[in-house]
Amino acid sequence: MEDIYIIKIGGSIIDNEEKLKIFLQQFATIPEKKILVHGGGKLATKLAEKLAIEQQMVNGRRITNKETLNIVTMVYAGIINKNIVAQLQAYNCNALGLCGADANLITANKRPLVNNIDYGFVGDVVSINTPFIEILLQQNITLVIAPITHNTKGNLLNTNADTIAQELAQALSFWYKTNLIYCFEKEGVLENMKDDNSVIKKINTTFYNTLKKDNKIHSGMIPKLDNSFIALKKGVNKVIIGNAEKIHELIKGTNHGTQIIQ
Amino acid sequence: MEDIYIIKIGGSIIDNEEKLKIFLQQFATIPEKKILVHGGGKLATKLAEKLAIEQQMVNGRRITNKETLNIVTMVYAGIINKNIVAQLQAYNCNALGLCGADANLITANKRPLVNNIDYGFVGDVVSINTPFIEILLQQNITLVIAPITHNTKGNLLNTNADTIAQELAQALSFWYKTNLIYCFEKEGVLENMKDDNSVIKKINTTFYNTLKKDNKIHSGMIPKLDNSFIALKKGVNKVIIGNAEKIHELIKGTNHGTQIIQ
Repeated sequence: MEDIYIIKIGGSIIDNEEKLKIFLQQFATIPEKKILVHGGGKLATKLAEKLAIEQQMVNGRRITNKETLNIVTMVYAGIINKNIVAQLQAYNCNALGLCGADANLITANKRPLVNNIDYGFVGDVVSINTPFIEILLQQNITLVIAPITHNTKGNLLNTNADTIAQELAQALSFWYKTNLIYCFEKEGVLENMKDDNSVIKKINTTFYNTLKKDNKIHSGMIPKLDNSFIALKKGVNKVIIGNAEKIHELIKGTNHGTQIIQ
Repeated sequence: MEDIYIIKIGGSIIDNEEKLKIFLQQFATIPEKKILVHGGGKLATKLAEKLAIEQQMVNGRRITNKETLNIVTMVYAGIINKNIVAQLQAYNCNALGLCGADANLITANKRPLVNNIDYGFVGDVVSINTPFIEILLQQNITLVIAPITHNTKGNLLNTNADTIAQELAQALSFWYKTNLIYCFEKEGVLENMKDDNSVIKKINTTFYNTLKKDNKIHSGMIPKLDNSFIALKKGVNKVIIGNAEKIHELIKGTNHGTQIIQ
Protein backbone atom coordinates (compact mmCIF):
# COMPACT_ATOMS: atom_id res chain seq x y z
CA MET A 1 0.00 0.00 0.00
CA GLU A 2 0.99 3.61 -0.57
CA ASP A 3 2.20 5.67 2.38
CA ILE A 4 0.22 8.63 3.67
CA TYR A 5 1.25 11.01 6.43
CA ILE A 6 -1.36 12.50 8.74
CA ILE A 7 0.47 15.23 10.58
CA LYS A 8 -0.94 17.23 13.45
CA ILE A 9 0.66 20.48 14.58
CA GLY A 10 -0.06 21.89 17.99
CA GLY A 11 -0.74 25.36 19.28
CA SER A 12 2.81 26.24 20.23
CA ILE A 13 3.87 25.97 16.58
CA ILE A 14 0.87 27.91 15.31
CA ASP A 15 1.48 30.71 17.81
CA ASN A 16 5.06 31.16 16.59
CA GLU A 17 5.13 32.70 13.10
CA GLU A 18 8.78 31.76 12.47
CA LYS A 19 8.42 28.14 13.66
CA LEU A 20 5.22 27.73 11.66
CA LYS A 21 6.96 29.00 8.54
CA ILE A 22 9.87 26.57 8.96
CA PHE A 23 7.43 23.72 9.54
CA LEU A 24 5.26 24.58 6.51
CA GLN A 25 8.27 24.93 4.20
CA GLN A 26 9.39 21.44 5.20
CA PHE A 27 5.88 19.99 5.17
CA ALA A 28 5.32 21.31 1.61
CA THR A 29 8.24 19.24 0.32
CA ILE A 30 7.07 15.87 1.70
CA PRO A 31 6.73 13.93 -1.57
CA GLU A 32 4.16 11.42 -0.29
CA LYS A 33 0.44 12.08 0.15
CA LYS A 34 -0.20 14.09 3.29
CA ILE A 35 -2.88 15.67 5.44
CA LEU A 36 -2.30 18.45 7.94
CA VAL A 37 -4.50 18.77 11.02
CA HIS A 38 -4.01 21.91 13.06
CA GLY A 39 -5.05 22.93 16.53
CA GLY A 40 -5.85 26.39 17.68
CA GLY A 41 -3.11 27.95 19.72
CA LYS A 42 -3.53 30.96 21.94
CA LEU A 43 -5.24 33.15 19.33
CA ALA A 44 -8.75 31.95 20.24
CA THR A 45 -8.09 32.58 23.95
CA LYS A 46 -6.65 36.02 23.20
CA LEU A 47 -9.60 36.97 21.01
CA ALA A 48 -12.06 35.79 23.65
CA GLU A 49 -10.22 37.92 26.22
CA LYS A 50 -10.36 40.99 24.00
CA LEU A 51 -14.07 40.45 23.47
CA ALA A 52 -14.55 39.82 27.21
CA ILE A 53 -15.95 36.34 26.63
CA GLU A 54 -15.13 34.24 29.64
CA GLN A 55 -13.27 31.01 28.89
CA GLN A 56 -13.94 28.03 31.11
CA MET A 57 -11.43 25.17 31.05
CA VAL A 58 -11.95 21.77 32.70
CA ASN A 59 -9.12 19.20 32.64
CA GLY A 60 -7.32 21.18 29.93
CA ARG A 61 -10.36 21.19 27.65
CA ARG A 62 -12.30 24.26 26.74
CA ILE A 63 -15.98 24.43 27.64
CA THR A 64 -17.53 25.60 24.40
CA ASN A 65 -20.54 27.87 24.82
CA LYS A 66 -22.16 29.45 21.73
CA GLU A 67 -19.94 32.54 21.84
CA THR A 68 -16.81 30.44 22.22
CA LEU A 69 -17.91 28.21 19.34
CA ASN A 70 -18.16 31.33 17.17
CA ILE A 71 -14.67 32.35 18.21
CA VAL A 72 -13.04 28.99 17.53
CA THR A 73 -14.85 28.78 14.19
CA MET A 74 -13.47 32.18 13.21
CA VAL A 75 -9.98 31.46 14.46
CA TYR A 76 -9.50 27.77 13.58
CA ALA A 77 -11.51 27.49 10.34
CA GLY A 78 -10.92 31.13 9.35
CA ILE A 79 -7.66 32.87 10.04
CA ILE A 80 -5.40 29.92 10.96
CA ASN A 81 -6.68 27.52 8.32
CA LYS A 82 -6.67 30.00 5.44
CA ASN A 83 -3.28 31.48 6.28
CA ILE A 84 -1.73 28.00 6.41
CA VAL A 85 -3.33 27.21 3.02
CA ALA A 86 -2.08 30.46 1.46
CA GLN A 87 1.45 29.82 2.76
CA LEU A 88 1.48 26.23 1.48
CA GLN A 89 0.31 27.46 -1.93
CA ALA A 90 3.29 29.82 -1.96
CA TYR A 91 5.53 26.79 -1.30
CA ASN A 92 3.99 25.00 -4.30
CA CYS A 93 1.90 22.64 -2.22
CA ASN A 94 -1.68 22.55 -3.52
CA ALA A 95 -3.43 22.85 -0.16
CA LEU A 96 -7.17 22.93 0.51
CA GLY A 97 -8.55 23.98 3.88
CA LEU A 98 -11.59 22.24 5.29
CA CYS A 99 -13.60 21.86 8.44
CA GLY A 100 -15.73 18.82 9.21
CA ALA A 101 -18.92 20.35 7.79
CA ASP A 102 -17.34 20.81 4.34
CA ALA A 103 -18.50 18.03 2.02
CA ASN A 104 -19.66 16.26 5.18
CA LEU A 105 -16.01 15.49 5.94
CA ILE A 106 -16.30 14.76 9.68
CA THR A 107 -19.59 14.23 11.46
CA ALA A 108 -19.78 14.26 15.23
CA ASN A 109 -22.20 13.96 18.12
CA LYS A 110 -22.47 16.64 20.75
CA ARG A 111 -20.72 15.18 23.77
CA PRO A 112 -23.10 13.95 26.49
CA LEU A 113 -22.51 14.99 30.10
CA VAL A 114 -19.22 13.62 31.45
CA ASN A 115 -19.14 13.37 35.27
CA ASN A 116 -21.95 15.91 35.23
CA ILE A 117 -19.86 18.35 33.18
CA ASP A 118 -21.52 19.78 30.08
CA TYR A 119 -18.71 20.51 27.63
CA GLY A 120 -21.10 22.57 25.49
CA PHE A 121 -20.69 22.57 21.70
CA VAL A 122 -18.03 19.87 21.70
CA GLY A 123 -18.20 17.03 19.22
CA ASP A 124 -17.08 13.42 19.40
CA VAL A 125 -16.28 12.06 15.95
CA VAL A 126 -18.86 9.73 14.40
CA SER A 127 -17.76 9.34 10.79
CA ILE A 128 -15.14 10.37 8.24
CA ASN A 129 -15.99 10.86 4.55
CA THR A 130 -13.03 8.83 3.23
CA PRO A 131 -14.32 8.54 -0.38
CA PHE A 132 -14.25 12.33 -0.67
CA ILE A 133 -10.78 12.54 0.90
CA GLU A 134 -9.64 9.98 -1.66
CA ILE A 135 -11.00 12.09 -4.54
CA LEU A 136 -8.96 15.07 -3.33
CA LEU A 137 -5.82 13.00 -2.69
CA GLN A 138 -6.03 11.63 -6.23
CA GLN A 139 -5.84 15.25 -7.43
CA ASN A 140 -2.61 15.67 -5.42
CA ILE A 141 -4.39 18.01 -3.09
CA THR A 142 -3.09 18.36 0.46
CA LEU A 143 -5.94 18.66 2.95
CA VAL A 144 -5.54 21.15 5.80
CA ILE A 145 -8.11 20.36 8.44
CA ALA A 146 -9.42 22.68 11.16
CA PRO A 147 -10.75 20.97 14.32
CA ILE A 148 -14.38 21.94 13.78
CA THR A 149 -16.92 19.21 12.99
CA HIS A 150 -20.70 19.21 12.49
CA ASN A 151 -23.67 17.20 13.68
CA THR A 152 -25.43 17.10 10.25
CA LYS A 153 -28.31 19.08 11.80
CA GLY A 154 -26.83 22.49 11.13
CA ASN A 155 -24.57 22.83 14.17
CA LEU A 156 -20.82 23.18 14.16
CA LEU A 157 -18.95 21.48 17.00
CA ASN A 158 -15.52 22.09 18.50
CA THR A 159 -13.47 18.89 18.36
CA ASN A 160 -10.09 17.87 19.70
CA ALA A 161 -7.50 18.08 16.90
CA ASP A 162 -5.43 15.15 18.25
CA THR A 163 -8.51 12.95 18.03
CA ILE A 164 -9.37 14.16 14.52
CA ALA A 165 -5.85 13.25 13.37
CA GLN A 166 -6.22 9.79 14.93
CA GLU A 167 -9.67 9.22 13.42
CA LEU A 168 -8.42 10.29 9.97
CA ALA A 169 -5.41 7.98 10.18
CA GLN A 170 -7.63 5.12 11.26
CA ALA A 171 -10.25 5.73 8.53
CA LEU A 172 -7.59 5.92 5.82
CA SER A 173 -5.91 2.69 6.98
CA PHE A 174 -8.14 0.66 4.66
CA TRP A 175 -6.72 2.52 1.68
CA TYR A 176 -3.21 3.52 2.71
CA LYS A 177 -0.27 2.65 4.93
CA THR A 178 -1.10 5.44 7.38
CA ASN A 179 1.51 7.22 9.44
CA LEU A 180 0.32 9.50 12.20
CA ILE A 181 2.73 12.16 13.43
CA TYR A 182 2.01 14.48 16.33
CA CYS A 183 4.27 17.52 16.05
CA PHE A 184 4.92 20.04 18.76
CA GLU A 185 7.74 22.14 20.17
CA LYS A 186 9.51 19.36 22.14
CA GLU A 187 11.71 16.55 20.83
CA GLY A 188 9.25 13.84 21.86
CA VAL A 189 7.75 12.25 24.96
CA LEU A 190 10.09 13.05 27.85
CA GLU A 191 10.93 10.61 30.65
CA ASN A 192 11.67 13.61 32.85
CA MET A 193 9.42 16.58 32.09
CA LYS A 194 12.16 18.98 33.21
CA ASP A 195 14.86 17.48 31.00
CA ASP A 196 14.47 18.13 27.26
CA ASN A 197 17.17 15.54 26.57
CA SER A 198 15.24 12.70 28.22
CA VAL A 199 13.35 11.76 25.04
CA ILE A 200 11.89 8.26 25.17
CA LYS A 201 12.76 6.48 21.89
CA LYS A 202 9.94 3.99 22.06
CA ILE A 203 6.96 3.71 24.34
CA ASN A 204 4.47 0.86 24.65
CA THR A 205 1.28 0.55 26.73
CA THR A 206 3.02 -1.05 29.72
CA PHE A 207 5.71 1.62 29.90
CA TYR A 208 3.10 4.35 29.40
CA ASN A 209 0.98 3.04 32.27
CA THR A 210 4.02 2.95 34.56
CA LEU A 211 4.97 6.53 33.67
CA LYS A 212 1.38 7.68 34.13
CA LYS A 213 1.16 5.99 37.53
CA ASP A 214 4.36 7.78 38.57
CA ASN A 215 2.88 11.11 37.35
CA LYS A 216 5.72 11.48 34.86
CA ILE A 217 3.55 12.25 31.81
CA HIS A 218 2.71 15.88 31.09
CA SER A 219 -1.08 16.36 31.13
CA GLY A 220 -1.05 17.76 27.58
CA MET A 221 0.63 14.58 26.37
CA ILE A 222 -2.05 12.21 27.69
CA PRO A 223 -4.65 12.76 24.90
CA LYS A 224 -1.89 12.38 22.27
CA LEU A 225 -0.68 9.11 23.77
CA ASP A 226 -4.18 7.74 24.36
CA ASN A 227 -5.02 8.54 20.74
CA SER A 228 -1.74 6.98 19.59
CA PHE A 229 -2.47 3.62 21.20
CA ILE A 230 -6.03 3.63 19.82
CA ALA A 231 -4.64 4.40 16.34
CA LEU A 232 -2.20 1.46 16.46
CA LYS A 233 -4.93 -0.90 17.63
CA LYS A 234 -7.13 0.23 14.74
CA GLY A 235 -4.69 -0.42 11.93
CA VAL A 236 -2.49 2.69 11.77
CA ASN A 237 0.98 1.69 10.59
CA LYS A 238 3.17 4.01 12.64
CA VAL A 239 2.70 6.73 15.27
CA ILE A 240 5.44 9.22 16.13
CA ILE A 241 5.50 12.20 18.48
CA GLY A 242 8.23 14.78 17.88
CA ASN A 243 9.50 18.23 17.01
CA ALA A 244 7.64 20.10 14.25
CA GLU A 245 10.89 21.57 12.94
CA LYS A 246 12.26 18.08 12.23
CA ILE A 247 9.38 16.67 10.24
CA HIS A 248 11.59 15.04 7.57
CA GLU A 249 13.71 13.30 10.22
CA LEU A 250 10.56 12.08 11.98
CA ILE A 251 9.27 10.64 8.70
CA LYS A 252 12.60 8.95 7.93
CA GLY A 253 12.64 7.52 11.45
CA THR A 254 16.23 8.58 11.96
CA ASN A 255 16.68 8.66 15.70
CA HIS A 256 14.25 11.54 16.30
CA GLY A 257 11.04 11.72 18.28
CA THR A 258 9.20 9.05 20.23
CA GLN A 259 7.74 6.09 18.40
CA ILE A 260 4.60 4.66 19.92
CA ILE A 261 4.40 0.88 19.78
CA GLN A 262 1.82 -1.60 21.01
CA MET B 1 -25.10 22.82 -22.41
CA GLU B 2 -26.11 22.13 -18.83
CA ASP B 3 -27.38 25.01 -16.71
CA ILE B 4 -25.46 26.23 -13.68
CA TYR B 5 -26.54 28.91 -11.22
CA ILE B 6 -23.98 31.20 -9.64
CA ILE B 7 -25.85 32.94 -6.87
CA LYS B 8 -24.49 35.76 -4.77
CA ILE B 9 -26.14 36.77 -1.50
CA GLY B 10 -25.49 40.13 0.02
CA GLY B 11 -24.84 41.31 3.52
CA SER B 12 -28.43 42.22 4.41
CA ILE B 13 -29.43 38.56 4.01
CA ILE B 14 -26.44 37.26 5.93
CA ASP B 15 -27.12 39.66 8.80
CA ASN B 16 -30.69 38.39 9.18
CA GLU B 17 -30.75 34.86 10.63
CA GLU B 18 -34.36 34.21 9.61
CA LYS B 19 -33.98 35.53 6.05
CA LEU B 20 -30.76 33.58 5.60
CA LYS B 21 -32.47 30.40 6.75
CA ILE B 22 -35.36 30.87 4.30
CA PHE B 23 -32.90 31.56 1.50
CA LEU B 24 -30.71 28.54 2.29
CA GLN B 25 -33.68 26.18 2.53
CA GLN B 26 -34.78 27.26 -0.93
CA PHE B 27 -31.26 27.32 -2.34
CA ALA B 28 -30.68 23.74 -1.13
CA THR B 29 -33.56 22.47 -3.28
CA ILE B 30 -32.37 23.96 -6.59
CA PRO B 31 -31.97 20.76 -8.63
CA GLU B 32 -29.38 22.15 -11.06
CA LYS B 33 -25.69 22.59 -10.35
CA LYS B 34 -25.09 25.68 -8.23
CA ILE B 35 -22.45 27.81 -6.54
CA LEU B 36 -23.10 30.23 -3.71
CA VAL B 37 -20.94 33.33 -3.27
CA HIS B 38 -21.49 35.26 -0.08
CA GLY B 39 -20.50 38.71 1.08
CA GLY B 40 -19.73 39.74 4.58
CA GLY B 41 -22.51 41.73 6.17
CA LYS B 42 -22.15 43.83 9.24
CA LEU B 43 -20.44 41.19 11.37
CA ALA B 44 -16.93 42.18 10.24
CA THR B 45 -17.62 45.85 10.97
CA LYS B 46 -19.10 44.98 14.38
CA LEU B 47 -16.13 42.78 15.28
CA ALA B 48 -13.70 45.50 14.20
CA GLU B 49 -15.59 47.98 16.39
CA LYS B 50 -15.46 45.67 19.40
CA LEU B 51 -11.72 45.19 18.88
CA ALA B 52 -11.29 48.95 18.38
CA ILE B 53 -9.85 48.50 14.89
CA GLU B 54 -10.69 51.56 12.87
CA GLN B 55 -12.49 50.89 9.59
CA GLN B 56 -11.84 53.20 6.69
CA MET B 57 -14.31 53.17 3.80
CA VAL B 58 -13.78 54.91 0.45
CA ASN B 59 -16.59 54.90 -2.15
CA GLY B 60 -18.36 52.12 -0.25
CA ARG B 61 -15.31 49.88 -0.28
CA ARG B 62 -13.37 48.91 2.80
CA ILE B 63 -9.70 49.86 3.02
CA THR B 64 -8.12 46.60 4.11
CA ASN B 65 -5.15 47.00 6.41
CA LYS B 66 -3.51 43.90 7.93
CA GLU B 67 -5.75 43.88 11.00
CA THR B 68 -8.88 44.29 8.87
CA LEU B 69 -7.71 41.49 6.57
CA ASN B 70 -7.47 39.24 9.63
CA ILE B 71 -10.98 40.20 10.64
CA VAL B 72 -12.57 39.61 7.24
CA THR B 73 -10.72 36.29 6.95
CA MET B 74 -12.14 35.19 10.30
CA VAL B 75 -15.63 36.44 9.58
CA TYR B 76 -16.06 35.66 5.86
CA ALA B 77 -14.02 32.43 5.51
CA GLY B 78 -14.64 31.33 9.11
CA ILE B 79 -17.93 31.94 10.84
CA ILE B 80 -20.14 32.93 7.89
CA ASN B 81 -18.82 30.38 5.42
CA LYS B 82 -18.82 27.43 7.82
CA ASN B 83 -22.25 28.18 9.28
CA ILE B 84 -23.75 28.39 5.79
CA VAL B 85 -22.11 25.07 4.92
CA ALA B 86 -23.38 23.38 8.11
CA GLN B 87 -26.91 24.65 7.45
CA LEU B 88 -26.89 23.50 3.83
CA GLN B 89 -25.69 20.07 4.96
CA ALA B 90 -28.71 19.94 7.30
CA TYR B 91 -30.92 20.66 4.27
CA ASN B 92 -29.32 17.73 2.40
CA CYS B 93 -27.23 19.92 0.13
CA ASN B 94 -23.64 18.65 0.04
CA ALA B 95 -21.92 22.01 0.47
CA LEU B 96 -18.20 22.71 0.61
CA GLY B 97 -16.86 26.06 1.79
CA LEU B 98 -13.83 27.55 0.11
CA CYS B 99 -11.85 30.74 -0.16
CA GLY B 100 -9.70 31.62 -3.15
CA ALA B 101 -6.51 30.20 -1.62
CA ASP B 102 -8.05 26.72 -1.30
CA ALA B 103 -6.85 24.50 -4.13
CA ASN B 104 -5.69 27.72 -5.79
CA LEU B 105 -9.33 28.47 -6.58
CA ILE B 106 -9.09 32.22 -7.19
CA THR B 107 -5.80 34.04 -7.62
CA ALA B 108 -5.64 37.83 -7.47
CA ASN B 109 -3.25 40.74 -7.66
CA LYS B 110 -3.05 43.29 -4.90
CA ARG B 111 -4.82 46.34 -6.28
CA PRO B 112 -2.44 49.11 -7.42
CA LEU B 113 -3.08 52.70 -6.27
CA VAL B 114 -6.38 54.03 -7.66
CA ASN B 115 -6.51 57.85 -7.79
CA ASN B 116 -3.72 57.78 -5.21
CA ILE B 117 -5.83 55.63 -2.86
CA ASP B 118 -4.14 52.50 -1.50
CA TYR B 119 -6.94 50.01 -0.88
CA GLY B 120 -4.54 47.83 1.15
CA PHE B 121 -4.90 44.06 1.03
CA VAL B 122 -7.55 44.10 -1.69
CA GLY B 123 -7.31 41.71 -4.60
CA ASP B 124 -8.39 41.99 -8.22
CA VAL B 125 -9.15 38.57 -9.69
CA VAL B 126 -6.53 37.12 -12.05
CA SER B 127 -7.58 33.51 -12.55
CA ILE B 128 -10.18 30.91 -11.61
CA ASN B 129 -9.30 27.22 -11.25
CA THR B 130 -12.21 25.92 -13.34
CA PRO B 131 -10.88 22.35 -13.74
CA PHE B 132 -10.99 21.94 -9.96
CA ILE B 133 -14.47 23.46 -9.73
CA GLU B 134 -15.56 20.96 -12.39
CA ILE B 135 -14.18 18.03 -10.34
CA LEU B 136 -16.28 19.13 -7.35
CA LEU B 137 -19.39 19.81 -9.44
CA GLN B 138 -19.13 16.31 -10.91
CA GLN B 139 -19.36 15.00 -7.33
CA ASN B 140 -22.61 16.94 -6.88
CA ILE B 141 -20.87 19.23 -4.45
CA THR B 142 -22.21 22.76 -4.02
CA LEU B 143 -19.40 25.26 -3.60
CA VAL B 144 -19.86 28.03 -1.04
CA ILE B 145 -17.30 30.73 -1.71
CA ALA B 146 -16.05 33.38 0.70
CA PRO B 147 -14.75 36.60 -0.90
CA ILE B 148 -11.12 36.08 0.09
CA THR B 149 -8.53 35.40 -2.63
CA HIS B 150 -4.75 34.93 -2.61
CA ASN B 151 -1.77 36.23 -4.55
CA THR B 152 0.02 32.82 -4.73
CA LYS B 153 2.87 34.32 -2.69
CA GLY B 154 1.35 33.53 0.70
CA ASN B 155 -0.94 36.53 1.10
CA LEU B 156 -4.69 36.48 1.41
CA LEU B 157 -6.58 39.36 -0.22
CA ASN B 158 -10.03 40.81 0.40
CA THR B 159 -12.05 40.74 -2.83
CA ASN B 160 -15.43 42.08 -3.86
CA ALA B 161 -18.00 39.25 -3.75
CA ASP B 162 -20.04 40.66 -6.66
CA THR B 163 -16.94 40.55 -8.82
CA ILE B 164 -16.05 37.01 -7.71
CA ALA B 165 -19.55 35.84 -8.70
CA GLN B 166 -19.17 37.51 -12.11
CA GLU B 167 -15.68 36.06 -12.68
CA LEU B 168 -16.90 32.57 -11.73
CA ALA B 169 -19.90 32.82 -14.08
CA GLN B 170 -17.67 34.02 -16.87
CA ALA B 171 -15.02 31.30 -16.32
CA LEU B 172 -17.64 28.55 -16.25
CA SER B 173 -19.31 29.79 -19.45
CA PHE B 174 -17.03 27.56 -21.51
CA TRP B 175 -18.44 24.49 -19.77
CA TYR B 176 -21.98 25.48 -18.78
CA LYS B 177 -24.92 27.68 -19.62
CA THR B 178 -24.16 30.04 -16.74
CA ASN B 179 -26.81 32.03 -14.94
CA LEU B 180 -25.67 34.74 -12.55
CA ILE B 181 -28.11 35.85 -9.88
CA TYR B 182 -27.45 38.70 -7.46
CA CYS B 183 -29.73 38.28 -4.46
CA PHE B 184 -30.44 40.90 -1.86
CA GLU B 185 -33.31 42.23 0.24
CA LYS B 186 -35.06 44.26 -2.49
CA GLU B 187 -37.21 43.03 -5.37
CA GLY B 188 -34.75 44.16 -8.03
CA VAL B 189 -33.26 47.33 -9.49
CA LEU B 190 -35.64 50.16 -8.65
CA GLU B 191 -36.47 53.03 -10.99
CA ASN B 192 -37.27 55.10 -7.93
CA MET B 193 -35.05 54.27 -4.96
CA LYS B 194 -37.82 55.28 -2.56
CA ASP B 195 -40.48 53.09 -4.16
CA ASP B 196 -40.06 49.33 -3.63
CA ASN B 197 -42.71 48.71 -6.28
CA SER B 198 -40.79 50.47 -9.03
CA VAL B 199 -38.85 47.35 -10.05
CA ILE B 200 -37.35 47.60 -13.53
CA LYS B 201 -38.15 44.37 -15.41
CA LYS B 202 -35.31 44.65 -17.88
CA ILE B 203 -32.37 46.98 -18.06
CA ASN B 204 -29.82 47.41 -20.84
CA THR B 205 -26.67 49.52 -21.06
CA THR B 206 -28.41 52.53 -22.58
CA PHE B 207 -31.16 52.61 -19.95
CA TYR B 208 -28.55 52.03 -17.20
CA ASN B 209 -26.46 54.97 -18.40
CA THR B 210 -29.54 57.22 -18.46
CA LEU B 211 -30.51 56.20 -14.92
CA LYS B 212 -26.93 56.68 -13.71
CA LYS B 213 -26.74 60.13 -15.31
CA ASP B 214 -29.97 61.08 -13.52
CA ASN B 215 -28.53 59.78 -10.21
CA LYS B 216 -31.32 57.23 -9.96
CA ILE B 217 -29.15 54.20 -9.23
CA HIS B 218 -28.33 53.36 -5.62
CA SER B 219 -24.54 53.44 -5.09
CA GLY B 220 -24.56 49.84 -3.79
CA MET B 221 -26.19 48.71 -7.05
CA ILE B 222 -23.49 50.14 -9.33
CA PRO B 223 -20.85 47.37 -8.84
CA LYS B 224 -23.58 44.72 -9.33
CA LEU B 225 -24.78 46.31 -12.57
CA ASP B 226 -21.27 46.98 -13.87
CA ASN B 227 -20.41 43.34 -13.17
CA SER B 228 -23.64 42.20 -14.80
CA PHE B 229 -22.90 43.93 -18.10
CA ILE B 230 -19.33 42.59 -18.10
CA ALA B 231 -20.70 39.07 -17.47
CA LEU B 232 -23.10 39.27 -20.42
CA LYS B 233 -20.34 40.54 -22.71
CA LYS B 234 -18.13 37.63 -21.65
CA GLY B 235 -20.53 34.81 -22.41
CA VAL B 236 -22.77 34.53 -19.36
CA ASN B 237 -26.23 33.36 -20.43
CA LYS B 238 -28.45 35.30 -18.05
CA VAL B 239 -28.06 37.85 -15.26
CA ILE B 240 -30.81 38.62 -12.76
CA ILE B 241 -30.93 40.87 -9.71
CA GLY B 242 -33.68 40.16 -7.18
CA ASN B 243 -34.99 39.17 -3.78
CA ALA B 244 -33.12 36.38 -1.98
CA GLU B 245 -36.36 34.99 -0.60
CA LYS B 246 -37.69 34.37 -4.11
CA ILE B 247 -34.78 32.46 -5.57
CA HIS B 248 -36.93 29.83 -7.30
CA GLU B 249 -39.06 32.51 -8.97
CA LEU B 250 -35.92 34.34 -10.10
CA ILE B 251 -34.59 31.13 -11.63
CA LYS B 252 -37.89 30.37 -13.36
CA GLY B 253 -37.97 33.93 -14.70
CA THR B 254 -41.59 34.39 -13.68
CA ASN B 255 -42.05 38.11 -13.48
CA HIS B 256 -39.67 38.64 -10.56
CA GLY B 257 -36.46 40.62 -10.27
CA THR B 258 -34.61 42.67 -12.85
CA GLN B 259 -33.12 40.96 -15.86
CA ILE B 260 -29.95 42.55 -17.21
CA ILE B 261 -29.72 42.52 -20.98
CA GLN B 262 -27.11 43.85 -23.40
